[in-house]
Amino acid sequence: MGKDVISVGGFNRPKLDYLFGLAEEMRKAVRQHGSVKLLEDKVSVNLFYEPSTRTSSSFAAAMNRLGGKVISITDIHSSSVAKGESLPDTIKTLEQYSDVIVLRHPEVGSARLAAKVSNKPIINAGDGIGEHPTQALLDLFTIREKMGTIDGLTVTMIGDLKFGRTVHSLTQLLSLFKVNLAFVSPLELQLPRQLLAEIKTKRRGISIEESTALEKAIGRTDVLYVTRIQKERFSNQDEYEKVENCCIVTPELLRNAKKRMIVMHPLPRINEIDFRVDLDPRLVIFRQVENGMYIRMALLAAVLYRS
Amino acid sequence: MGKDVISVGGFNRPKLDYLFGLAEEMRKAVRQHGSVKLLEDKVSVNLFYEPSTRTSSSFAAAMNRLGGKVISITDIHSSSVAKGESLPDTIKTLEQYSDVIVLRHPEVGSARLAAKVSNKPIINAGDGIGEHPTQALLDLFTIREKMGTIDGLTVTMIGDLKFGRTVHSLTQLLSLFKVNLAFVSPLELQLPRQLLAEIKTKRRGISIEESTALEKAIGRTDVLYVTRIQKERFSNQDEYEKVENCCIVTPELLRNAKKRMIVMHPLPRINEIDFRVDLDPRLVIFRQVENGMYIRMALLAAVLYRS
Amino acid sequence: MGKDVISVGGFNRPKLDYLFGLAEEMRKAVRQHGSVKLLEDKVSVNLFYEPSTRTSSSFAAAMNRLGGKVISITDIHSSSVAKGESLPDTIKTLEQYSDVIVLRHPEVGSARLAAKVSNKPIINAGDGIGEHPTQALLDLFTIREKMGTIDGLTVTMIGDLKFGRTVHSLTQLLSLFKVNLAFVSPLELQLPRQLLAEIKTKRRGISIEESTALEKAIGRTDVLYVTRIQKERFSNQDEYEKVENCCIVTPELLRNAKKRMIVMHPLPRINEIDFRVDLDPRLVIFRQVENGMYIRMALLAAVLYRS
Repeated sequence: MGKDVISVGGFNRPKLDYLFGLAEEMRKAVRQHGSVKLLEDKVSVNLFYEPSTRTSSSFAAAMNRLGGKVISITDIHSSSVAKGESLPDTIKTLEQYSDVIVLRHPEVGSARLAAKVSNKPIINAGDGIGEHPTQALLDLFTIREKMGTIDGLTVTMIGDLKFGRTVHSLTQLLSLFKVNLAFVSPLELQLPRQLLAEIKTKRRGISIEESTALEKAIGRTDVLYVTRIQKERFSNQDEYEKVENCCIVTPELLRNAKKRMIVMHPLPRINEIDFRVDLDPRLVIFRQVENGMYIRMALLAAVLYRS
Repeated sequence: MGKDVISVGGFNRPKLDYLFGLAEEMRKAVRQHGSVKLLEDKVSVNLFYEPSTRTSSSFAAAMNRLGGKVISITDIHSSSVAKGESLPDTIKTLEQYSDVIVLRHPEVGSARLAAKVSNKPIINAGDGIGEHPTQALLDLFTIREKMGTIDGLTVTMIGDLKFGRTVHSLTQLLSLFKVNLAFVSPLELQLPRQLLAEIKTKRRGISIEESTALEKAIGRTDVLYVTRIQKERFSNQDEYEKVENCCIVTPELLRNAKKRMIVMHPLPRINEIDFRVDLDPRLVIFRQVENGMYIRMALLAAVLYRS
Repeated sequence: MGKDVISVGGFNRPKLDYLFGLAEEMRKAVRQHGSVKLLEDKVSVNLFYEPSTRTSSSFAAAMNRLGGKVISITDIHSSSVAKGESLPDTIKTLEQYSDVIVLRHPEVGSARLAAKVSNKPIINAGDGIGEHPTQALLDLFTIREKMGTIDGLTVTMIGDLKFGRTVHSLTQLLSLFKVNLAFVSPLELQLPRQLLAEIKTKRRGISIEESTALEKAIGRTDVLYVTRIQKERFSNQDEYEKVENCCIVTPELLRNAKKRMIVMHPLPRINEIDFRVDLDPRLVIFRQVENGMYIRMALLAAVLYRS
């Protein structure tokens, strides 16, 4: 592990193996003892320029279960930042108090900028439409746990593939493995052509397929990764209604799916996964949440104890 | 103790004795050592859909003094909930990180719903006009501490008895004992007829009296429980002004009260208790606050260590 | 140290020596071990009626690095205070939970009022245009650390000297020493005449000089203390623009400064110190931030362990 966690681009298979091994140790320890007192003398700052209860709570719980303390800064709009302070000044201030800074910021590249000016580790908790590496890492960790392997799997992603940074980051990580990728979305929300081209050029062992209907792909799918289509993306309400129902997962749909497959979602879900599916053991969305804490514990421990 | 603390309806006299004994242990330990490290490996989530500095701080302090960590979620309106996530999804997410969830929610029944979907204990910190069980428990604990007993006491409740959930919950708990209840309020704000009927049918040993003037009742009162009349309850400003002053506690009024009696209030107070009364040792409003921490420590310890 | 930290007026040279010695111990311990577990059984409440990310984070980190727990109350406007509760009631409530209260409040005198009604120590984290004693203490501590001494120094303060409480408090502390004070500001923003008169009468060993141009003073300056001129202070936009650039620190200006001198700022800075100056080792603004944590650790330890 390097000093910071900014992008999934920094990970290769050995680094992932190391991280996932550490996350498994964390899971074992938390289940047995509730906590692992590795960071008892450490303080993290959660600096969230955008609200994100889910991500900030997960990082806070991770730090707490490592014995560390957390300072949460979420009321940014009424703080010195609102008075016009630059991001570098804010970071160079907070690093004086803390051992690690977890940053969520609306602008692409902000985490990288923070890492550049900071002597303390920066963990990117989402930089606008850029990256959200810890989400992609917890997703991949959950796939590996549930399916036993990643090579050879058919991963089908549905929903908003154009704007969903989760999908982009996970796709990049998956392309380190020999996987079959199926992308299902309305035409308006297809995976960015540039990202598609990148995977195609760099990773020749990967099969890629795009379509607009889930029914065809569901039978071969090992991992169904569902994302939300946000109404806000559409200027035209008619357009939204046309696509809204293209990507809903129902018990009826899952009847045609493999017995051993999993349904994932980065949450929050609104109606993309029918609540009747909650009884289906193939739905692993809350396991993703649990694993998120272990992955974040592993990352915090790794950046604070690197040699 | 069961898995959750949802309602005062779940308490009987043996359970109260157990809880109050535990709270006394907590008081002794905090006064001697500042803290009791029972929950050092535990994390609680304070999930407050409505702001309540007082209650959330009290729960946070209780958890902290047990050695545990607290994740406070209070910026609900800008979080995933605001994006339309269901309460069960939010609860099932947060229980992955935490060992217990303290929930304040504006809707009646929300705490019960949360307890149903959660594998981790839920403590109700107020569900709309429903219940606020920890407030009633700390009130009863304070009465028992200050008066030595509960049986035989005359408890007079004044103010807004119609909408005050504190009054409703405390009345329910008191009706487990042989008490005399006096309810003093404007006619518009009398105790709900249904609650009154319930107590009368179920608990035949209890004497009940209603009136609109405190002067008559004050002389026999052992416990005077004061609540605030909220302006917002009245559509008509004239109506409010008519009742506003019916239920103010002054030094003059207390001249006619017993030497050994107590004046309580769930706080915040505005002008229901004259500030000149602050010098009167019979006023125990800040002792209630202190006791609230011990009761919450006892509840947290009980739900996390039940056998 | 007394029970509370309300004003710099309570400090004399022996008390400062004691405090700074303690802060140095804290620095040594934090650099070696990350934390000093002196307050493991203690809980502080950060009660901030005005937002101040910087100050509240610094106090939180200080408490955490002493092993203590922090309850942050910053959502005041939606809390019981907004329901009309008095400051004494809020303080008397929170002191039931906590061992020390750190208070930021918009009204002058609020910290003193809080200290009067509270049995627990109160630390003033800023009371309106009144005082912000911990800022002045960390400033003085930084001067002593960087310059080795305080007596004999020429301290030049620039910017808004009229409304800046930081300048007022620091000036008061500096006047305990034999210093030369130079005040540089637009005429509209000169140091209040009353404060100037006070220093002149009480402290005859101190030389004082006022001007409107930094160029003249820079050559003799040992400590340049820069503050921000807030646009909001001016009803007339033209007036603002006229003074805006009077007090900007640039690399060009610093060419005429001593080799061994320091440039300070209470932060946040907007454009008062040119970002090109960041490479100049004489800029100690982030060292001030770091020292702030040690000073606050020392104060917390002192008020909680006084004999």
